[in-house]
Amino acid sequence: MTTVRDATFELFRRHGMTTIFGNPGSTELPMLANFPDDFRYVLGLQEAVAVGMADGFAQASRRVTHVNLHTAPGLGNGVGAIFNARANKAPLLVTAGQQTRALVSMQANLTNRDAVEVPKPYVKWGNEPTRAADVPYALAQAIHHASLPPRGPVFVSIPMDDWAHELAPVDYERQIARGVAGRTLPAASAVEALAERLRSAARPVFVAGPDIDAAGGWDAAVELAERRRLPVWASPATGGNRLGFPEDHPLFQGVLPPAVGPIAEVLAGHDLVIVAGSSVFPYYPNIPGDLLAAGTELVAITSDPDEAARAPMGDAIVADVALTLRALAGALGDAADREPPPVREPAPAPEEAERLAPGAVHATLASLFPDGGIVVLESPSSTPSLRNQLRLSRPGSYYFSAGGGLGFGLSAALGVQLAEPGRQVVCVLGEGSAQYAITAFWTAAAYAIPVKFLVLRNSEYSILKWFATLEGVEGAPGLDLPALDGALTADGPRLVQVDVAPGMALV
Amino acid sequence: MTTVRDATFELFRRHGMTTIFGNPGSTELPMLANFPDDFRYVLGLQEAVAVGMADGFAQASRRVTHVNLHTAPGLGNGVGAIFNARANKAPLLVTAGQQTRALVSMQANLTNRDAVEVPKPYVKWGNEPTRAADVPYALAQAIHHASLPPRGPVFVSIPMDDWAHELAPVDYERQIARGVAGRTLPAASAVEALAERLRSAARPVFVAGPDIDAAGGWDAAVELAERRRLPVWASPATGGNRLGFPEDHPLFQGVLPPAVGPIAEVLAGHDLVIVAGSSVFPYYPNIPGDLLAAGTELVAITSDPDEAARAPMGDAIVADVALTLRALAGALGDAADREPPPVREPAPAPEEAERLAPGAVHATLASLFPDGGIVVLESPSSTPSLRNQLRLSRPGSYYFSAGGGLGFGLSAALGVQLAEPGRQVVCVLGEGSAQYAITAFWTAAAYAIPVKFLVLRNSEYSILKWFATLEGVEGAPGLDLPALDGALTADGPRLVQVDVAPGMALV
Amino acid sequence: MTTVRDATFELFRRHGMTTIFGNPGSTELPMLANFPDDFRYVLGLQEAVAVGMADGFAQASRRVTHVNLHTAPGLGNGVGAIFNARANKAPLLVTAGQQTRALVSMQANLTNRDAVEVPKPYVKWGNEPTRAADVPYALAQAIHHASLPPRGPVFVSIPMDDWAHELAPVDYERQIARGVAGRTLPAASAVEALAERLRSAARPVFVAGPDIDAAGGWDAAVELAERRRLPVWASPATGGNRLGFPEDHPLFQGVLPPAVGPIAEVLAGHDLVIVAGSSVFPYYPNIPGDLLAAGTELVAITSDPDEAARAPMGDAIVADVALTLRALAGALGDAADREPPPVREPAPAPEEAERLAPGAVHATLASLFPDGGIVVLESPSSTPSLRNQLRLSRPGSYYFSAGGGLGFGLSAALGVQLAEPGRQVVCVLGEGSAQYAITAFWTAAAYAIPVKFLVLRNSEYSILKWFATLEGVEGAPGLDLPALDGALTADGPRLVQVDVAPGMALV
Amino acid sequence: MTTVRDATFELFRRHGMTTIFGNPGSTELPMLANFPDDFRYVLGLQEAVAVGMADGFAQASRRVTHVNLHTAPGLGNGVGAIFNARANKAPLLVTAGQQTRALVSMQANLTNRDAVEVPKPYVKWGNEPTRAADVPYALAQAIHHASLPPRGPVFVSIPMDDWAHELAPVDYERQIARGVAGRTLPAASAVEALAERLRSAARPVFVAGPDIDAAGGWDAAVELAERRRLPVWASPATGGNRLGFPEDHPLFQGVLPPAVGPIAEVLAGHDLVIVAGSSVFPYYPNIPGDLLAAGTELVAITSDPDEAARAPMGDAIVADVALTLRALAGALGDAADREPPPVREPAPAPEEAERLAPGAVHATLASLFPDGGIVVLESPSSTPSLRNQLRLSRPGSYYFSAGGGLGFGLSAALGVQLAEPGRQVVCVLGEGSAQYAITAFWTAAAYAIPVKFLVLRNSEYSILKWFATLEGVEGAPGLDLPALDGALTADGPRLVQVDVAPGMALV
Repeated sequence: MTTVRDATFELFRRHGMTTIFGNPGSTELPMLANFPDDFRYVLGLQEAVAVGMADGFAQASRRVTHVNLHTAPGLGNGVGAIFNARANKAPLLVTAGQQTRALVSMQANLTNRDAVEVPKPYVKWGNEPTRAADVPYALAQAIHHASLPPRGPVFVSIPMDDWAHELAPVDYERQIARGVAGRTLPAASAVEALAERLRSAARPVFVAGPDIDAAGGWDAAVELAERRRLPVWASPATGGNRLGFPEDHPLFQGVLPPAVGPIAEVLAGHDLVIVAGSSVFPYYPNIPGDLLAAGTELVAITSDPDEAARAPMGDAIVADVALTLRALAGALGDAADREPPPVREPAPAPEEAERLAPGAVHATLASLFPDGGIVVLESPSSTPSLRNQLRLSRPGSYYFSAGGGLGFGLSAALGVQLAEPGRQVVCVLGEGSAQYAITAFWTAAAYAIPVKFLVLRNSEYSILKWFATLEGVEGAPGLDLPALDGALTADGPRLVQVDVAPGMALV
Repeated sequence: MTTVRDATFELFRRHGMTTIFGNPGSTELPMLANFPDDFRYVLGLQEAVAVGMADGFAQASRRVTHVNLHTAPGLGNGVGAIFNARANKAPLLVTAGQQTRALVSMQANLTNRDAVEVPKPYVKWGNEPTRAADVPYALAQAIHHASLPPRGPVFVSIPMDDWAHELAPVDYERQIARGVAGRTLPAASAVEALAERLRSAARPVFVAGPDIDAAGGWDAAVELAERRRLPVWASPATGGNRLGFPEDHPLFQGVLPPAVGPIAEVLAGHDLVIVAGSSVFPYYPNIPGDLLAAGTELVAITSDPDEAARAPMGDAIVADVALTLRALAGALGDAADREPPPVREPAPAPEEAERLAPGAVHATLASLFPDGGIVVLESPSSTPSLRNQLRLSRPGSYYFSAGGGLGFGLSAALGVQLAEPGRQVVCVLGEGSAQYAITAFWTAAAYAIPVKFLVLRNSEYSILKWFATLEGVEGAPGLDLPALDGALTADGPRLVQVDVAPGMALV
Repeated sequence: MTTVRDATFELFRRHGMTTIFGNPGSTELPMLANFPDDFRYVLGLQEAVAVGMADGFAQASRRVTHVNLHTAPGLGNGVGAIFNARANKAPLLVTAGQQTRALVSMQANLTNRDAVEVPKPYVKWGNEPTRAADVPYALAQAIHHASLPPRGPVFVSIPMDDWAHELAPVDYERQIARGVAGRTLPAASAVEALAERLRSAARPVFVAGPDIDAAGGWDAAVELAERRRLPVWASPATGGNRLGFPEDHPLFQGVLPPAVGPIAEVLAGHDLVIVAGSSVFPYYPNIPGDLLAAGTELVAITSDPDEAARAPMGDAIVADVALTLRALAGALGDAADREPPPVREPAPAPEEAERLAPGAVHATLASLFPDGGIVVLESPSSTPSLRNQLRLSRPGSYYFSAGGGLGFGLSAALGVQLAEPGRQVVCVLGEGSAQYAITAFWTAAAYAIPVKFLVLRNSEYSILKWFATLEGVEGAPGLDLPALDGALTADGPRLVQVDVAPGMALV
Repeated sequence: MTTVRDATFELFRRHGMTTIFGNPGSTELPMLANFPDDFRYVLGLQEAVAVGMADGFAQASRRVTHVNLHTAPGLGNGVGAIFNARANKAPLLVTAGQQTRALVSMQANLTNRDAVEVPKPYVKWGNEPTRAADVPYALAQAIHHASLPPRGPVFVSIPMDDWAHELAPVDYERQIARGVAGRTLPAASAVEALAERLRSAARPVFVAGPDIDAAGGWDAAVELAERRRLPVWASPATGGNRLGFPEDHPLFQGVLPPAVGPIAEVLAGHDLVIVAGSSVFPYYPNIPGDLLAAGTELVAITSDPDEAARAPMGDAIVADVALTLRALAGALGDAADREPPPVREPAPAPEEAERLAPGAVHATLASLFPDGGIVVLESPSSTPSLRNQLRLSRPGSYYFSAGGGLGFGLSAALGVQLAEPGRQVVCVLGEGSAQYAITAFWTAAAYAIPVKFLVLRNSEYSILKWFATLEGVEGAPGLDLPALDGALTADGPRLVQVDVAPGMALV
């Protein structure tokens, strides 16, 4: 007889979801009973780590990834990491166990009283099935929701006694065998209209966002940019969980700043801005100004209806970013005869100084960076310098938390490495950032995951001190990390800790 | 001119809320600017730790305690710990920063899009003020909600530009100067009716729950029990975040088991059960049976309407537990002439064995326990043995997570110690539990908080293996912790790690 | 064998809930099968009417009242009326049917996808049971929540196939037999402190709110006022769903205005304001000013923690209003020797004019008002004049919608009359108000409910025109009701329609 | 200077949103001040009517339509109708006024305490702007969300003092001038794969759903069906708010039944089912069975990701229905040489009988139906007979509530007629249905809207009696409507009431 557990593992097999991340408790044990040999289970010692690993794995594998959490408090610990996954558009299937159905109305200990509500602000869809028989069906629905654009996390709460429930074929056979296709092109008229705007523009510019990478659209982006000799900017690093364009390409100009006024200044002089695969824009500090200079128009291409609807300026097209760029390049015909923009060299590495500058570390890292390497970054105050020094030329080579929640970097690096066993992952962390997910070092060791870690230590929350200056804040407590040393972190051949100068590192 | 910040710190002063726990980010800096000298700020390196410390402080000080988190992802990291605080009825004021008002509609990075929704399942009240001018007023409302029975966490989201807003007196003077009294007695008729039931009962029994301690009701509970020579049980340890009765008292019988059938068996033969300061009951595994034996009646006294409404059996009275016990004792008149129950001795400490039993450790701990000491416990598989070996005789001497979320113990111990500087806190942890909040060791060190830690290492999640046996689960992954050693934990004179035998420790 | 339906009707019997209001659909039929003879079912033709009738019945009977709605759209139609019930603190058990469990995951038609979310903002508690076996238990929990202070609506969603489910005794016998007591007194020290403040006050004043009536506290309020010769104001009519004090009593001064500045002016000169059974205050238009004059202090007594927490000024005590007033009166000892305030006569009825003034109608109504009569009022622009002309001397004689949602009056009048068959209900409506629940006339006729209706017609939304003047708004559409005549309303001996002058009627 | 009100009306103009439906209160007056001449305001006397009218207008005009409700209780009254609009995929902009910002924290009367939560289960997006300056921007975001597939209602709560706020150009100029394009094609490979499945199928069949009409896809559907000689079924009437195919076309076979087993039976023998513009499927009563017969495959084309994800069987493609059908027809090449299916004639009109059968009424209606006429239907027990007798041949000729909430029909008919002034709207209602929105007759009269109404009276809720038989329910109260006659409804030349036989009318 087929049980809910049997049907669920079969569903997972059909979607290639055979790596499960988790931190189990009593309410999850029935799912894990007789764990099948063709699956692997990766344990995190705190839920934020389990979710972060799954996020990295989902992004790098482009596949829905299952992370299994403990009921209420366990799920609660993961909420921040689920926020990150939503911002990263990582297709995560988050599940949590629930008390036995017979005990839920009594609110027995570990009842997840508002199970579906807990992650709701950050998941695309959530459910606790009305009947045990509906568990595989609910999981299948969840997987489709996670996969459809914009991809993102989903949630299912599962009473622990449901797993052994026996199913009739009508309850699961057709439900778990479905395929749902959601990649789309814009209507032909919309593509042609945009091509015409681009043809008529005197000084167009292209802004490449992270979803170009997620959609597999690097080639299309390069083709489009080269065909029209467009200068290319990366969307602001704050929202850039991936790279949308090879940053060592001669058309590449640099990374947009993350604030209203400065972006308008950088883009001033262009009459048409094409933004692909990014919100418009992931602003961060409040530096007021015009949204765009007079005379500048903007069109955004995004697979996320919310990004399209909420942009404060410009028109928008909602469709798959890669397919749309390809169609647009196709509609444009021959290359423009305009001059390509001058090549912008990265800033030189910082001079030697009394204390090592993070940029100097990154310049060294760039010089040693392994071929096909992947960087996972969470060193807030040196993000600009790393982006400036380490210009990556291959898709899927850079991961950052678009949501800004710390703890992502260390955890996600493990997930990325598991998804990309043939490429070396290098994880660059601030010492403060590392603390948010410090137990991930145990998972790295226990599962022999060969990520290389570089921890930059400056004995402070530098990014906060930078913000304090920006905001005119003095005398704030809690910004120094004087006693934070290696005693709290894993050590070993794969971890390098470097003491660097404090402060924001722009180059 | 008075700013929102000025009025807020004045509000905090009036409530004695001068210790602030937190993990700040850019959105919290404006609150922390020019941090007043009469306040102290205690930094946690991850939000779950900050909330856990505040939970311990709030419980031990019985005072509303402020914990300040970073916007969306920071708040998200704290959700599991907020769940614990709700279960513990800890009066926490949780705040999180929000993006500048001008950037919220653009969903700029770090906008907390659904700020009030995120912690909603677990807070009593939440708000993001409609105007900057309403921030102190919203915080005052929140503090009153946290204080009123049943106490618990509340939440306010504060746009970062609100702090410098200047206030008119009408907006804050009366709002921050209010007192709200919510401790209540039942109607006199209800007290008398219960006294009469108790007088007429042939074999009454008393079940003491954690809120007796929270309400300051140990004396009243002892008076009541002694006056009627009632045998006294502690409510199940699973929901027992405090002790409701001196466990070395001759009337004390032990701790109720945490399941339906077993509780009915223990209470069978009694015709009336008086439960005070506990839900009825904090069940945990599903061991079916009658809720009570035939002929057993039950009356619960609780300050929590939800506990009263959701109990599956018995009558309930909603009022302050301490005041009600005192009134009931007063109404009962002379002592019963019935025989007191026989004294139940704690189980003997386990015999010596090849590997050290946790109970043996706890027996040793009991023998060395400092006078006036406080234990904060999070060692799931040895909770019964600690309760059995270490019988505490003073209020406010025991803290445990009623919600069961791990990470509480290590963090809360620091908060308890800060609230009770004159008493020695001993924190007993499982090695797995410790990992959920491992960075709290940094705070202990950085702030020189003199908690003593005892970590029991058995190289596994023993509680899960015990549950697996209970549920007939075999072959589950993720239950062993082979490589988890001191390299991941702080070391030093105040930390003792002991290798113990695996498995559940009942004695 | 006992089914869910059997146990549910037994539960209802135990709580005296044998009158059910509703508007059924296919998902509710299984509950209604073989409807028991000792129950009565009152049909409304739209859900807002069914809820409004139940609200009136619940308030007048002081008993939890069941209203049974159709799944999603039916429940949706009732949300506005549930808002009113919450504002009125009416203990309503709202239930709605849900699709068969087997069809819910498919979202078959009439699935209530977010059943518990729909009424959530306005109910105290909501639930859809995890198992069919838990339905009676869930309903019992709901009834306790509705009953506990502050009383209010609760919600349970019930899959239609659950009703025939057979129950084991352990699932329902003890669950449906429970009693929960929640009426409380403040701690003795709080009562004494308030008595002392009152004794020391030079010019105290008493503000009587609607919950005095709901709590059965008229006698205690009169005793307190007389003992201290306190002048008595009614809290603003906008939030006054009941009367808290006999309005023909010599100490009665009138009704407070509903705005910040004007209230402070009325209360200026008093050094202590005691408010009982009202929020502080149900303000309505924005007329700024000081919350209270300098030198005026305020203490509120309320059974609603939210009212206590959110008040912008003054101290608060949370406890049963009637019990607290009684205790306070008891603690005060001998009467004050101060002079009673001068008697305030109601304003004279308006002079004759070209078009009949509403106040003239109300003066006539007062002259003819039946002994023991009850007025249910929903004539927004003439509320002040009715309160001014018709001064009622018996508890439970006046019902108004504290929330301000129209449609309450006509519907609630039927519910009040069914709950008070021995007293004549007179329902005074504006012609516009009547339209929000116009089909209630059918229920009145079909069930021969002897309410007398008085409809005042002025061919406009007068209250809106008054507000437009207040707000300086000109040229707004939609404020006239020119063609609204009896063709749309029931006619007959029990309905009187009177054409009156347009405009706000203050006297 | 430009105010929030100015910018808002300008935004509405740009989207052609110059007809506003509503039921205003004091909190909406500031929006309506100096109402512009180029707008029209249509007043409903209860909110469900206002929303229903807007729903009909939005569907018929295919344009986002604004409905303006009163704060909390007014919005609450509209929730059921908003549920309908969501099911109908009607692009509604629902707004409600909110108290003055200064009074919100005090919860002054008419504060919409959880404004965004109230309609949340049924709107695609909701917001209450953080600043007055963001109101036009929030409304623009809302309009884009409502327009993007799947279309549906959205909500914005607006504090009443925001309307007069003066704006800087940066706050509104670019925000209100945006265009967002969301109509999409599937990836070319998906179209080709489906074409190939269709080419290889031996016995394919086409199921036409309501969104074909909404997307303007009748021609494409006819082209596809004719090219492959596909028999065509309408998706079940229960979810069919529009017609997806001309029902007098020779390939049209009839309407699918609304239950699991019966649908599988009708489709048995086909090896491939193409469903377009419908959920799979809008089941209604629970008649179990296989989802599809063995050997039957299914592919659904829908613009609604939720429909695609939740279908219990078959594959799905998410894209615009009209564009996809057009592309699919294009990819199919020459017509099949298979025989077209035999023509299915509508059932004959019922014989004469003692009491008039609804089908006989519909047959007469069909014989008299005006050219280009539109039917709006809400006569639950005679839906099948109307669909059977009245086969419509023009797009946009039929409207029904996909959600099943009553009150839609009468209200929506007015909205449809206002949107389609050149076509005659005929509204067919049951007498019970009419009561849910009976005050809409006033709006019809006051605005001289020339809808013709046909009310069928059978003195009962026939659909419920039919369900009662289906479910084996006897003795249920509340199913008869004995005294419901014209005294409660409008009368006049445009209203015909017909007494018909009770019971379900299938033909």
